Amino acid sequence: MSLLDTIAAIATPPGQGGVGIVRVSGPKVWTIADEIFRSTGRPSQASGGTFLFGTVRASDGSEIDEALCLIFRAPRSYTGEDTIELQGHGGPVVLKNILRRCLEAGARMAQPGEFTQRAFLNGKMDLVQAEAVADLIHAQSDRAAHVAIEQLEGGLSRQFNQVYNALMEVAADVETTLDFVEDELPEHVFPGLGQKVDLSLQGLDELLSTWDEGRLLREGARVVIMGRPNAGKSTLFNVLLGSDRAIVTAIAGTTRDVIEESLVIDGIPLRLLDTAGLRETECRIEQEGIRRARVHFAAADIVLYLIDSSQPVSQEDDDHLAALDLSRTIIVLNKMDSRHPDFLMKELGVQPVDASLMTGVGAAAICAAIAQKLGGISHAPAHAVISERHRNLLELARNEIVQARERIAEGEELGAAPAAEHLRAALEFLGQVTGRVYHHELLNNIFSRFCIGK
Amino acid sequence: MSLLDTIAAIATPPGQGGVGIVRVSGPKVWTIADEIFRSTGRPSQASGGTFLFGTVRASDGSEIDEALCLIFRAPRSYTGEDTIELQGHGGPVVLKNILRRCLEAGARMAQPGEFTQRAFLNGKMDLVQAEAVADLIHAQSDRAAHVAIEQLEGGLSRQFNQVYNALMEVAADVETTLDFVEDELPEHVFPGLGQKVDLSLQGLDELLSTWDEGRLLREGARVVIMGRPNAGKSTLFNVLLGSDRAIVTAIAGTTRDVIEESLVIDGIPLRLLDTAGLRETECRIEQEGIRRARVHFAAADIVLYLIDSSQPVSQEDDDHLAALDLSRTIIVLNKMDSRHPDFLMKELGVQPVDASLMTGVGAAAICAAIAQKLGGISHAPAHAVISERHRNLLELARNEIVQARERIAEGEELGAAPAAEHLRAALEFLGQVTGRVYHHELLNNIFSRFCIGK
Repeated sequence: MSLLDTIAAIATPPGQGGVGIVRVSGPKVWTIADEIFRSTGRPSQASGGTFLFGTVRASDGSEIDEALCLIFRAPRSYTGEDTIELQGHGGPVVLKNILRRCLEAGARMAQPGEFTQRAFLNGKMDLVQAEAVADLIHAQSDRAAHVAIEQLEGGLSRQFNQVYNALMEVAADVETTLDFVEDELPEHVFPGLGQKVDLSLQGLDELLSTWDEGRLLREGARVVIMGRPNAGKSTLFNVLLGSDRAIVTAIAGTTRDVIEESLVIDGIPLRLLDTAGLRETECRIEQEGIRRARVHFAAADIVLYLIDSSQPVSQEDDDHLAALDLSRTIIVLNKMDSRHPDFLMKELGVQPVDASLMTGVGAAAICAAIAQKLGGISHAPAHAVISERHRNLLELARNEIVQARERIAEGEELGAAPAAEHLRAALEFLGQVTGRVYHHELLNNIFSRFCIGK
Repeated sequence: MSLLDTIAAIATPPGQGGVGIVRVSGPKVWTIADEIFRSTGRPSQASGGTFLFGTVRASDGSEIDEALCLIFRAPRSYTGEDTIELQGHGGPVVLKNILRRCLEAGARMAQPGEFTQRAFLNGKMDLVQAEAVADLIHAQSDRAAHVAIEQLEGGLSRQFNQVYNALMEVAADVETTLDFVEDELPEHVFPGLGQKVDLSLQGLDELLSTWDEGRLLREGARVVIMGRPNAGKSTLFNVLLGSDRAIVTAIAGTTRDVIEESLVIDGIPLRLLDTAGLRETECRIEQEGIRRARVHFAAADIVLYLIDSSQPVSQEDDDHLAALDLSRTIIVLNKMDSRHPDFLMKELGVQPVDASLMTGVGAAAICAAIAQKLGGISHAPAHAVISERHRNLLELARNEIVQARERIAEGEELGAAPAAEHLRAALEFLGQVTGRVYHHELLNNIFSRFCIGK
């Protein structure tokens, strides 16, 4: 992963489109460009911020594609290095041929995320911003894209830096007390540090509280459909998706595999899961389906519990509902148009949604109920939405700060030295969030999740 | 479809990648660019061939994405019009938001192929070149890409133009004879025209002969695997693909649906089809599978006929082979490592390939046999590979020319006027190939097959 290599990759999504891009970055870029790109002028002589019309040529001079060559002069490029982008036709074979030509001429294939890693190493962005690049590309909703662009612009980094700087100040103060001979230290100084540490903890906790929303935006909220066989679960699944994804029959036990699809409600991406109906069964495939369904209920953000109201209320439904956390459950009474005269729900303190899903009635009310429940999960300001990685580091830092706080409470004689240790450890963890401190494994972890070409 | 509209579309393939492009072309492009793109300078003031670093902004000023804005000044652009390309992050949501912003600011959504259609209408390319753009994007093999780029550079257009111009000359000569009073026309002139027409026909026929290869390169050669149940058809399918695509079991009749996958051998794209084993069966799903298989054999470019040589030769295999066109059949004797002592193939005048597919033995020989058979289909020079549309028009033109030839044989008195008519009709058809002559429906037909954004 040396910065002395010149790296190349297809930077546009795979598949067929009008236009595709091969990006090449590193010290040999002008040699490569002059060798493979034919135009009125030589790329190596062109100014940054301009592009040339020309053709990419094979080593025998035959034409591979008509292309543009965009010229980026360091440091005004994505990576901060000299870079070209060859924009050709958006076909997989032709882009592969352009890339192969770049490799022939001296570039090597880029690793996943390696362009962004270079941007980080060259000081173009910190790690939190680098992660925002991947978040923006993978954003499944407008809100997720909005949060990612704010983060890319440095909104979240600024908050991390505030917490870091405040803690750095406390740590410096604690270190300073170590230099004093006991009697010289003014009396109020050491206890005052405790209050400053409390403020830092508060800042950390505010950031930590945004994780729930971050997870929803990045991974999607898990909405699991649950109920007895034939309650209409797969019909609900299809109605919400607006397609015939799941096979629907009147035969109980039709769905066995857990089926998952994505959709967006109110700017929040959802992962909607259809599951096997819950019942005692002899069929081993169905038993396995029910076992898998139960695993998904446990991890759900929202459970859509479906009841067939054309039947009398069943003991099984009562039992299932009793086992659920109703604060994250939406109860749907399906088949309302043929409701059984004896159907009467037990009072559960939640308002069920009436529906007749075969005709789509109730779908809008169900969407509204989902949006309302999701809205309750977080109201964080747009730019402050941390990721799993951030949370882990913040939790580790928090743990150290809590211990520092306890040492400080013991007074300066006993506590100052160990408190300083803990604060230093906390800073180390916090520094890894934005990349003030980093090691090979950390970078590897972050950038291996990127696509190649970014 | 007015050229007065400003059109916009995502020009990169759908999905996630490092980079994505929204292209905007037409008279309002500078107004739109200035309104939505914020940078150190205004796009409307920037020179063609340069690009600006900046951000795409929502109408409330909030940031949608960091982006480059490439400036193309007419006629130096793909469409021949003033054009910008906004290069942002390659995520579906963020690109959709950039596109939506362009539409808000006054562009309309481009139709499929509309950018290329404008390139044609503005004289940047003829129809044959425009078709090459789509061929290049959809090329599935190096050879197909190579043919498409030659066609894009005008190689095929030149050939069509030669045929067109030669025929135009003959037509002019015939028209001229109409002006002569009988006795004035020198005696050898009219019969000489017959020879010129023959030459034109020859040129047409040369072009028509390239169609077979054109079809192979564009659609892929259809290679169908055939044989009795359990001969190892699905194993061969998987071995050629290098993957576990088809379910393989020891149970005869495992494959029912026709399974199709693509691969490339020797630069030629193949569509490889695995089919149900041929046998008498009571199972109705399997019967249907066998019926479908027979349909595919009829349309195959190559049949791979598999025989299980661990069994004595069966009458059924003999019967199937007798019904096949052996010039396009490759016979594979599978399970050679446990060959039955009584196994003896009837002499068919073709050399079968020995194989033991469970261990991959024989796969390379089968690929070589396929390549050899495909090589025999066409040896056209790279730039002369016509499409279905070209063939249809050439056939129509040919038909008219043949009739003109017959009229000419009748002598000038009777034949000159109708011959001139037929030649004019032939020129009309030939003109539609490159777009000298076009009508709305013709353009619609061609460009509706393009993707949006090209």
